[in-house]
Amino acid sequence: MHSSSIHDASIIGWAGTSPSHELETTVTQTAQSVIDDLTSTLPQGCVITDPVSTHAYRWDRALDPDAGVPLAVVRATSTEDVQAVIRIAAAAKVPVVPRGAGSGLSGGSSAVEGAIVLSLDRMREIRVDPSTRTAVVQPGAFNAEVKKAAAENGLWYPPDPSSYEFCSIGGNVATNAGGLCCVKYGVTTDYVLGLTVVLADGRAVTLGGPRLKDVAGLSLTKLFIGSEGTLGVITEITLRLIPAQLPPTTLVATFPALAGATQTVLDISREMRPSMLEFMDKVTINAVEDDIRMGLDRDAEAMLVIQSDEPGEHARAQIARIEAICAANGATEVYATDDPDEGEAFVHARRVAIPAVEKRGSLLLEDVGVPLPRLGDLVDGIAGIAERRDLTIAVLAHAGDGNTHPLIVLDPTDPDQQARAEIAYGEVMDLAIALGGTITGEHGVGRLKKRWLPDYLGADVMELNHRIKAALDPDGLLNPGAVYADDMWRP
Amino acid sequence: MHSSSIHDASIIGWAGTSPSHELETTVTQTAQSVIDDLTSTLPQGCVITDPVSTHAYRWDRALDPDAGVPLAVVRATSTEDVQAVIRIAAAAKVPVVPRGAGSGLSGGSSAVEGAIVLSLDRMREIRVDPSTRTAVVQPGAFNAEVKKAAAENGLWYPPDPSSYEFCSIGGNVATNAGGLCCVKYGVTTDYVLGLTVVLADGRAVTLGGPRLKDVAGLSLTKLFIGSEGTLGVITEITLRLIPAQLPPTTLVATFPALAGATQTVLDISREMRPSMLEFMDKVTINAVEDDIRMGLDRDAEAMLVIQSDEPGEHARAQIARIEAICAANGATEVYATDDPDEGEAFVHARRVAIPAVEKRGSLLLEDVGVPLPRLGDLVDGIAGIAERRDLTIAVLAHAGDGNTHPLIVLDPTDPDQQARAEIAYGEVMDLAIALGGTITGEHGVGRLKKRWLPDYLGADVMELNHRIKAALDPDGLLNPGAVYADDMWRP
Repeated sequence: MHSSSIHDASIIGWAGTSPSHELETTVTQTAQSVIDDLTSTLPQGCVITDPVSTHAYRWDRALDPDAGVPLAVVRATSTEDVQAVIRIAAAAKVPVVPRGAGSGLSGGSSAVEGAIVLSLDRMREIRVDPSTRTAVVQPGAFNAEVKKAAAENGLWYPPDPSSYEFCSIGGNVATNAGGLCCVKYGVTTDYVLGLTVVLADGRAVTLGGPRLKDVAGLSLTKLFIGSEGTLGVITEITLRLIPAQLPPTTLVATFPALAGATQTVLDISREMRPSMLEFMDKVTINAVEDDIRMGLDRDAEAMLVIQSDEPGEHARAQIARIEAICAANGATEVYATDDPDEGEAFVHARRVAIPAVEKRGSLLLEDVGVPLPRLGDLVDGIAGIAERRDLTIAVLAHAGDGNTHPLIVLDPTDPDQQARAEIAYGEVMDLAIALGGTITGEHGVGRLKKRWLPDYLGADVMELNHRIKAALDPDGLLNPGAVYADDMWRP
Repeated sequence: MHSSSIHDASIIGWAGTSPSHELETTVTQTAQSVIDDLTSTLPQGCVITDPVSTHAYRWDRALDPDAGVPLAVVRATSTEDVQAVIRIAAAAKVPVVPRGAGSGLSGGSSAVEGAIVLSLDRMREIRVDPSTRTAVVQPGAFNAEVKKAAAENGLWYPPDPSSYEFCSIGGNVATNAGGLCCVKYGVTTDYVLGLTVVLADGRAVTLGGPRLKDVAGLSLTKLFIGSEGTLGVITEITLRLIPAQLPPTTLVATFPALAGATQTVLDISREMRPSMLEFMDKVTINAVEDDIRMGLDRDAEAMLVIQSDEPGEHARAQIARIEAICAANGATEVYATDDPDEGEAFVHARRVAIPAVEKRGSLLLEDVGVPLPRLGDLVDGIAGIAERRDLTIAVLAHAGDGNTHPLIVLDPTDPDQQARAEIAYGEVMDLAIALGGTITGEHGVGRLKKRWLPDYLGADVMELNHRIKAALDPDGLLNPGAVYADDMWRP
């Protein structure tokens, strides 16, 4: 459950920091014939079986300690490659774990013992069509690359996970990823018009396409979004783009009390919709200040970073109103700037918050969300858990949409603290559920949160999830052990 | 396949204009016991079996000539009522046809012989929560009532089918309805955060809730949206609301050639995103002018109605640029107005287009959509079909999202013309498919378009639809005969 240092989290591979695990080199006869089939069917260089090279594909950023040793890693180059892999796997009843850039925070792409890890990291084409305002992209392209290609055509792909520079668009779709601008612009699913998906039996289907409206048949495109590789493997995505964002105005406010900050979030949201509304608590502020020294107020209990991208005088009016709301809620400092570089510096401070806190220890990273009026209760409740369990829990949040990232800091060499941290990890999710919230707003369930999924969904909805899974992947070979609490495949 | 006159389409019942059909009054013993169970279980007045009263619940606006005679109509008052109906139906293996306001244009709520028609028209509560910017609504509330309740809180529910004054929000969700503002603001699914759904076995489940971000488990909320009552019965909806729209500026342009109008649509869309971009052809313009006399140019081949809701000078700049694009594409008249009443008059002209054309005969109403660059080819191709089949086909369109409504006008007393019209009805869908488009952008497949669904989706995606249907409704009792070409239930 420990997150690695974010600085090691390049596309794939942080072999130096991953937990030691004895590499399995003996393969059974079936396994060997699967490897032979893969090697003879796929283009040269796609199949990796050397344990040193496959090692790097065993973890995502969650560094799941239970990650297995894969039989092989395939770095697909096309939909046809993916179909070939799935057909070989289906015939031999070998599971497949799809992965993009390996930046996932919930262990959704940890390898399964004896599985084929199917990496989409080489499939990175991006084709923008300004006349339909869409982009057709392969899953391995980075979010930042899609944004850049859109911008070259005067267009914008809004969803912006903090990891946008090193997360893949396929992973974004697989987890229905969020980000900072979602408070105004929505999440990944709101921008996906079509998909090519390879099904569990190796057939490839095209769902939706470059049309804003299409209601012919069930909403299957939407069903595959957020399915974390458990229903099919996404090999092409048609994204909706929108006109370029106007340069935002940025406001930063610090508060001597948490309640002032959370009330400000609520008051702002009641009357307007900023394009960013982020929250950092005292632990986070100090970790960031230690890291990048930009003169943040170390005594503040909370800081908000807010942006308005309304045009001209409307942004000025919105920011003026936000200043007044901050002041009414006891803000000690309020600072607004039109300067894009200065504004970006504050946003950067928020984006580096996770790695900054990570410098204080290993992290258990949460992703709980609540309806906005319960944000204060959630933040207070987390402080209570931290005190009761004698732990440091930093809280940062996409506050405007009620999605928080409590970071439980722990010393992995202290087993007692680790045990308390793991209890707290569950308590934070229980708290979110009790407040009418969700256990994961944007990172996905993966393998780390699946124990809490039945508590959140309830037995009936859990059973619905299983029915859909069984209908689309009857042998349970697609990303087994992710999302669903009971594995359907065992080695 | 004939649409009734829209003026008769109040919530339910246009008994005077519906096709004559011999009323079935003999009920079998099982049927009688189902009726007895319904009557003894549900609140007084909910169960209607009198053939004269149930008659009105047999059709929606599509007036499907194959609509059956229901066993009973239940007007549910709560989720519990809906559960009771589904449980009784499931036990007796009697199908259930859910319906909202009966304004559907694809026959999705035509009654099935011997079925229970489950009307949600009495469930009309709306609760707006400004602090989460959400509304929790019951399915029978009208779209216009939701808009009004949102507006009373300074908020806006954007999706706006032309029928918004008399269509239900439950029907909107069941069909993933669109409208005029979708070109900028998206469709129904983009505004649904949560649902309460009664499943085929009578269990009620709650999916999602008042949170912008939630990725715990499969995207089941999205799966039920657009499922046209075939997977479950929606009894409560949590909608996302956004800040009130700014007063729009309206521009009207007329063109001496269709190509000039469709090129204008494409040129505008390449560089900006208006909040409305509607198209009417000559037949439509003249039908509207006959109906409401507002001085439209009867000689124009096409007219565009365009709105910008950008703030202040941005709207003025956008409208000025649109004027230039219209002029460059040969527009004969371009007129822009900031006056809200004058602007609304032009939008009203567009909204009344269907009933206006309907005064020229019965209609076969299409809903085909294509990627924007193929809009001109679609409009030309439809003209070709009209000429070849010697028919009048009026074309109006939500042009900015490529969604068109060709209206095939026919005299129901002329069997030869009717036969040609029915051929043309299929040819228009075939054309859309050939152009990379969809057979239905926003009305749903219902019963009228299901014959073309396999051609559009292909065998593999059709089979996926069936697998999901079978997983969630194994006895095929929910709205049988809608969407899927082969009924799973027969009386």
